[in-house]
Amino acid sequence: MKTDIDRLMAERDMGALIVPVHEVYSPFLDYLVGSVRITHGMAVKIRDRDPVIIAHGMETDEAAATGHQVHSMAEMGFYDVLKAADNDSGRAEVAFIPHCLARLGVTGGKVGVYGVGHLHKIIAQMDALRADFPDYTFVGESGRTLFDEAAITKDADEISRIRVVAAATNAVLAQTWDFIASHRAGDDETVIDADGQPLLIGDVRRFILGALLAQGLEDTGMIFAQGRDAGMPHSRGRDEMPLKLGQSIVFDLFPRERGGGYHHDVTRTWCIGTVPEAVQAAYDQVMTAFDISVEVYKPGLPTRHMQEAVQDYFEAQGHPTARTHPGTDKGYVHSLGHGLGLQVHEKPGISHLSKDDVFEAGNVITIEPGLYYPADGYGVRVEDTFCINADGTLESLTPFKKDILLELQG
Amino acid sequence: MKTDIDRLMAERDMGALIVPVHEVYSPFLDYLVGSVRITHGMAVKIRDRDPVIIAHGMETDEAAATGHQVHSMAEMGFYDVLKAADNDSGRAEVAFIPHCLARLGVTGGKVGVYGVGHLHKIIAQMDALRADFPDYTFVGESGRTLFDEAAITKDADEISRIRVVAAATNAVLAQTWDFIASHRAGDDETVIDADGQPLLIGDVRRFILGALLAQGLEDTGMIFAQGRDAGMPHSRGRDEMPLKLGQSIVFDLFPRERGGGYHHDVTRTWCIGTVPEAVQAAYDQVMTAFDISVEVYKPGLPTRHMQEAVQDYFEAQGHPTARTHPGTDKGYVHSLGHGLGLQVHEKPGISHLSKDDVFEAGNVITIEPGLYYPADGYGVRVEDTFCINADGTLESLTPFKKDILLELQG
Repeated sequence: MKTDIDRLMAERDMGALIVPVHEVYSPFLDYLVGSVRITHGMAVKIRDRDPVIIAHGMETDEAAATGHQVHSMAEMGFYDVLKAADNDSGRAEVAFIPHCLARLGVTGGKVGVYGVGHLHKIIAQMDALRADFPDYTFVGESGRTLFDEAAITKDADEISRIRVVAAATNAVLAQTWDFIASHRAGDDETVIDADGQPLLIGDVRRFILGALLAQGLEDTGMIFAQGRDAGMPHSRGRDEMPLKLGQSIVFDLFPRERGGGYHHDVTRTWCIGTVPEAVQAAYDQVMTAFDISVEVYKPGLPTRHMQEAVQDYFEAQGHPTARTHPGTDKGYVHSLGHGLGLQVHEKPGISHLSKDDVFEAGNVITIEPGLYYPADGYGVRVEDTFCINADGTLESLTPFKKDILLELQG
Repeated sequence: MKTDIDRLMAERDMGALIVPVHEVYSPFLDYLVGSVRITHGMAVKIRDRDPVIIAHGMETDEAAATGHQVHSMAEMGFYDVLKAADNDSGRAEVAFIPHCLARLGVTGGKVGVYGVGHLHKIIAQMDALRADFPDYTFVGESGRTLFDEAAITKDADEISRIRVVAAATNAVLAQTWDFIASHRAGDDETVIDADGQPLLIGDVRRFILGALLAQGLEDTGMIFAQGRDAGMPHSRGRDEMPLKLGQSIVFDLFPRERGGGYHHDVTRTWCIGTVPEAVQAAYDQVMTAFDISVEVYKPGLPTRHMQEAVQDYFEAQGHPTARTHPGTDKGYVHSLGHGLGLQVHEKPGISHLSKDDVFEAGNVITIEPGLYYPADGYGVRVEDTFCINADGTLESLTPFKKDILLELQG
């Protein structure tokens, strides 16, 4: 949780951390200071003190809306630093970092650098910082980072926002089902509208985007993929393709609060009008795997055990898995799930390779078994988002029905 | 242009560059290989060879849609590397970079690292790469980067996409004007709908988002700010605020192709029903500054001269500027404009501090003078996007009217 950040900094012997602001949405900035839409400056968190935002003068009002202390770059002396750097804004941006740290009382020691932004820029800046300001030790972090460890458990405010996003996403699922169902079957196994025009995946996607907008959400790259594309877990689906009867459709929706914020993540597999035998068999097994996941769950369980239980089951049914055939593109090819929050993929991981993760209260996770046979023209995945409550119970946040057969009513 | 990349690599003595793929939209990846929605792997560009995409098996179909050569991570030996790293995926991800480079024939030398992603992760990965793979020199770049220098001029394909986005954005502007105009004046200087309900900034923003969606565009953080907020150049505006008569409204819209792509960038300042004298005076001066910008333009002109001409004019009218008062929050506080493309802010800069930039054919730029007096409750900005054609002429891509007075018709 956010309240763990000071402890996690202490464990890393980190006196301060900075989140540089680039012109890109940064969930790390939002996590540290709350939703803020700024494009310059940085957030500085000194251990055992509240974070501070250093913002361009054009953006101080936006930054102040977070409730945190805000200094304009001018107040912090940016224009003196710029002058000292002969108006070279690149050199000034580098020198401004230790300048601000010093103004805030941090004159050396280990400083973590976190965030989302331009990789080439931070690499060059780190080289310059380390060369020119040896009193500081600027560090990055990969693997299980400070932010991963904090965000692995959500606090009550986060959970309540996540519940709102969940309800809104479930409403969009229901509307999408009803929208497709309002169509009718045409010749050639196609789905057509009242005017006899084929319903395209692009039409469905636009409908979903409109429904998300009405709910205050935004898409972050939904999958609406049919047939062979459904058999490739991350194929987004092709807008120009007409919806067909009897094809598996993988619909994976992972929107967030508009402008950046908390996610929901849900997948349903639908077949319109009729379900081919092979798809039905895969669906039944995926549903069994889903039930196994929920049954083996208990608080304190290493997450890899849940994945292993599902792999045991799928392997017993004769499917290749990522454990028996690393890198396979058929069978059960991916992890069972993941944490989510301000990012769609967070800790804990639920993979057989997740060594350090155990289920605990405050986790918000997905469970998403799937089976993929692209060469046979189908894939099936079913996914809900869950939270683990204070009493250790696993609560689904995705009540929307898991039916595979979507009958046309039009 | 994209065809300059090999030359720019040679100038930097760079045998290869990589764009690591993180779970974040990366305009650099799109620039190098075309629109692609993948979340793992990397693009590798070896000098004088076509770029290659290394993608997770779940995403190879998506990657192949770019038309570039694609290798799955499995084909490239990721799972052997993972095994050699004792299933530590963090270590494997680092080792996989030189592993792929070597497989593609690059066994050492300077390798540029570019992209958008997690800053903390790339810092840690660079430290590991440099420590463990000394045959390579992995470098970042800040200031005027290789991608900046390439993208500063757009090719014919890019310009034609930019024209489509421009036309769509102009349509949204017209729809937004008409939407507001369809309302009527209520008591208390408010704007009300047919039911007598106040029109809120949030209502207008939702209308705009729907209009963008219908045009195939997506918002990247529009400003619709009224009164004092309009006086802060980067205040986004508050959704709960009712639209008022006689307040300056700064509407800055910079959408891009849906899912990531080329931008348009336009600002209009509107006053509903009536224009206060101070706002009209500021608007007239901003329009004069706009006309001065277009008049001083010529191909080959250092961009700073255009900003200086506008600063000369505003200073002569008694306004503080970023030249006379660096960091000022009143007067003419920002640059005159910027290049745009896959990012909303690209080179050339049009600031008095833009030392290296000159106007040239292929630039796509904004011109956006403004005057800001937040303490007096107003701001004015007017912005068009322009392209510089092969014959050096400056062509506006934003034909939508620049009128400030928006009369209610409802």
